[in-house]
Amino acid sequence: MDASWQDFVVTFDDQGLANLSSSASQAIQSLSRPRGPRSNITPQQLHDLIWSIDVCPEEGIALSLVLDELGSTVWSNGVAPSDPACVAHLHPPTLIPSVVTELAIAASNQSMDSWDQAPAATEVELHLMNWLARLAGLPAGASGIMTSGGTASNVLALTLARSWIGSTIGVDVLKTGLPENARSWRIVCSDQAHFSVQRAAAQLGLGRDAVVTVATLESGLMSVDALDTTLDQLARDGQRVIAIVATAGTTDLGVIDPLAEIGERAHSIGAWFHVDAAVAGAFLLSDRLKSRLSGIERADSITIDFHKLWWQPFNASALVIRDADQFDLLRVKSNYLDRGDEIEGMINLVGRSLDTSRRFDAAKVVATLRTLGRHSLAQMLEVVVELTQYAGRAIAAEPALRLVAPPASVMCVFEIPGLGADTVRDIQQRLLASGEMVLGRTEIRGQAALKFTFMNPLTTRADVDCLVAMVVREITA
Amino acid sequence: MDASWQDFVVTFDDQGLANLSSSASQAIQSLSRPRGPRSNITPQQLHDLIWSIDVCPEEGIALSLVLDELGSTVWSNGVAPSDPACVAHLHPPTLIPSVVTELAIAASNQSMDSWDQAPAATEVELHLMNWLARLAGLPAGASGIMTSGGTASNVLALTLARSWIGSTIGVDVLKTGLPENARSWRIVCSDQAHFSVQRAAAQLGLGRDAVVTVATLESGLMSVDALDTTLDQLARDGQRVIAIVATAGTTDLGVIDPLAEIGERAHSIGAWFHVDAAVAGAFLLSDRLKSRLSGIERADSITIDFHKLWWQPFNASALVIRDADQFDLLRVKSNYLDRGDEIEGMINLVGRSLDTSRRFDAAKVVATLRTLGRHSLAQMLEVVVELTQYAGRAIAAEPALRLVAPPASVMCVFEIPGLGADTVRDIQQRLLASGEMVLGRTEIRGQAALKFTFMNPLTTRADVDCLVAMVVREITA
Repeated sequence: MDASWQDFVVTFDDQGLANLSSSASQAIQSLSRPRGPRSNITPQQLHDLIWSIDVCPEEGIALSLVLDELGSTVWSNGVAPSDPACVAHLHPPTLIPSVVTELAIAASNQSMDSWDQAPAATEVELHLMNWLARLAGLPAGASGIMTSGGTASNVLALTLARSWIGSTIGVDVLKTGLPENARSWRIVCSDQAHFSVQRAAAQLGLGRDAVVTVATLESGLMSVDALDTTLDQLARDGQRVIAIVATAGTTDLGVIDPLAEIGERAHSIGAWFHVDAAVAGAFLLSDRLKSRLSGIERADSITIDFHKLWWQPFNASALVIRDADQFDLLRVKSNYLDRGDEIEGMINLVGRSLDTSRRFDAAKVVATLRTLGRHSLAQMLEVVVELTQYAGRAIAAEPALRLVAPPASVMCVFEIPGLGADTVRDIQQRLLASGEMVLGRTEIRGQAALKFTFMNPLTTRADVDCLVAMVVREITA
Repeated sequence: MDASWQDFVVTFDDQGLANLSSSASQAIQSLSRPRGPRSNITPQQLHDLIWSIDVCPEEGIALSLVLDELGSTVWSNGVAPSDPACVAHLHPPTLIPSVVTELAIAASNQSMDSWDQAPAATEVELHLMNWLARLAGLPAGASGIMTSGGTASNVLALTLARSWIGSTIGVDVLKTGLPENARSWRIVCSDQAHFSVQRAAAQLGLGRDAVVTVATLESGLMSVDALDTTLDQLARDGQRVIAIVATAGTTDLGVIDPLAEIGERAHSIGAWFHVDAAVAGAFLLSDRLKSRLSGIERADSITIDFHKLWWQPFNASALVIRDADQFDLLRVKSNYLDRGDEIEGMINLVGRSLDTSRRFDAAKVVATLRTLGRHSLAQMLEVVVELTQYAGRAIAAEPALRLVAPPASVMCVFEIPGLGADTVRDIQQRLLASGEMVLGRTEIRGQAALKFTFMNPLTTRADVDCLVAMVVREITA
């Protein structure tokens, strides 16, 4: 190491910022890579390459060399979400305002658990959460909290639902644990809901088996008739539905459940109504798309992932809830952190969160919203939704492929008639291995399927034609 | 907005990287701030200032203006963890290698849930986790996973413990929920353990009441005699201890419980042995300090926070476990993400995690370790530990203050003899309000106390003298 450790501590004087700036330029240069969604390195070669690096040498190595090495070994062998052929997952390219704000977030290192570790940051997060709650049509009194991901947001929502149901029967679940009759508690969602609903039930001690799934229509929407039948059956069986989860943007087909009707059912049986809008929450920004979320304003809680169609780097999710006072269900007094005797106006967000130390992710979201503005973000969204419609038509026109359902947001799921699951798998894996395409693969009603997910607003119709042609080429290969 | 949205999508060609670089420089300039741990703005003024910002204007605003505004409203009214008078919490200044790598992490936006969203990143995280497990003295077969914080790591550890205990009686807790006899399950820790142990028990459905705390000695250490008495009593009462949590670096006094003896007790009664080394895990790097962690190698799981004494930006925590096969207890097959039929060597880390999408925080840790090397990091650690010893002597020598216990790591807790809790509170809050010092405040055995936490290796003995003098000045003010 040429420099001494003193030179590496981030400070906010001129010299400190100059050091940071020159190193940031080096880090950015190290990101340079050729076109293509990934390199064609094999898993074994990659393993050997990475594991040959000495994680922690006795003496340090020049930062410029470390950054170059990260570039040549890690970044260049990663995937490039901004490449048009990176279409497997809800895995977006990111935006410059958010990425450079990430650097400022890390340098200033506010921690969201207490006001005295994040005074301005606390107000920014609250302001953003209130704005988001209003955008979703929730009433005054609604607010939220940022979490580490859609799964964490769903877990928090169902934690609140569990505590709330407990409170209605005089049980403080967080204090005394699940009561005897919790064995009859059920969470209802569609068979296309995200697996984090099951994971939440597992985490909460209810078990995955406490999740009852409702059949979906051909399009992938939760069937309201099937929901009614399910609820009737559960009532007859003496089981208590504590929450109904509707999905706004399912992971595979991208469909939005009929929110208003599901919300009405939830409230008529005294259940918590959670909307998992991790995917489609961004539609709230678009005048053309927001009507698809009609009914979301009935929700008791809503998950929205900024790291999906708001183009934020991981992680940036939010849970907004209808009545922010219900965060009190979570609150635990702590001697050192949230004593409750602070100066008025010093809010400690640890009281709303399942985390303690927590990154100031709200900053990057606000930087993005202010730089791009609502119109541009809506336009980007409409571009990818429209591109997906185009892809759906291209797939429908291709005899070798069968579109599973009309695209509802940014995914196209298609089958390959006549080919078995192993062959479909081989097609996806050959494209991945060659570094030509990172293609999605899933299963719809037991049938192996492939999936395009379009998260990149710079992708063109010509790119889509090329992706379809590459898949067809592999079928005949 | 002068630019169009197309200009803001991060790409890795020369033009894209040049755009990113010039914006990064602006973001860094916006961090400039005067000395001092915080501004003296009041909570109400700060609220009004932040809430006057339009979170999402219809049309965007130039990025340079947005970044300047973040600087003048948010960063300048935040706290500065690199200021010597920012001593309230385990809230470190950060290091240049990690901060600039954060930018690369955000730009490349790998997602750690699946190999096809993070091929090289997956191997980097696994390599780092294996190195950390070895550093802690765990056997071959040990490995780990990065989480969003110490709380999340502790929750994951106790989730594994709960599933493991379930498996010993033939119950898949994650599938079928807590069994009947889970009402007798207990988690044992000291009365100085972090409140996340209670939060984990609450989350898992056991309830905070399932946590049994063991009395500590005057120094803050868990008393092994009291532990034995507690375990005997629980056995007599027919309660099943599923896990014993030892703390390596308590939040207030920084002490390290007697790990070897506690581990021996845990295993003799068939309980999971978890070590919460969120704070003191870094001692493993130092030849002078690592012997204090003797016994950690007996752990079934260990929490280590890189965002504490490894000077990483939030969030960066790790859970390493003795037998990585036990992560299989968590695994849930997913149609689209972790099917189990991938090409050999393509590991999907979602199977080890309670999260799905997850940031590539391992990169910043590796960049730091390689740039500084073990010797320098050990030296930084020894500097803050030694500085805390100095502060302890300075407090002991000051008649107006009473040191609660000899400093054991990087905290000094002290009382003000003759002053009541309200006056102690006022002293801390006056210093916070004036912007002169962000001082810690806690309660030890019901007694109001103040706390210095020294996380900044650039802080000098003269700075410490000044902090002590400021507190004394406030007592007589």
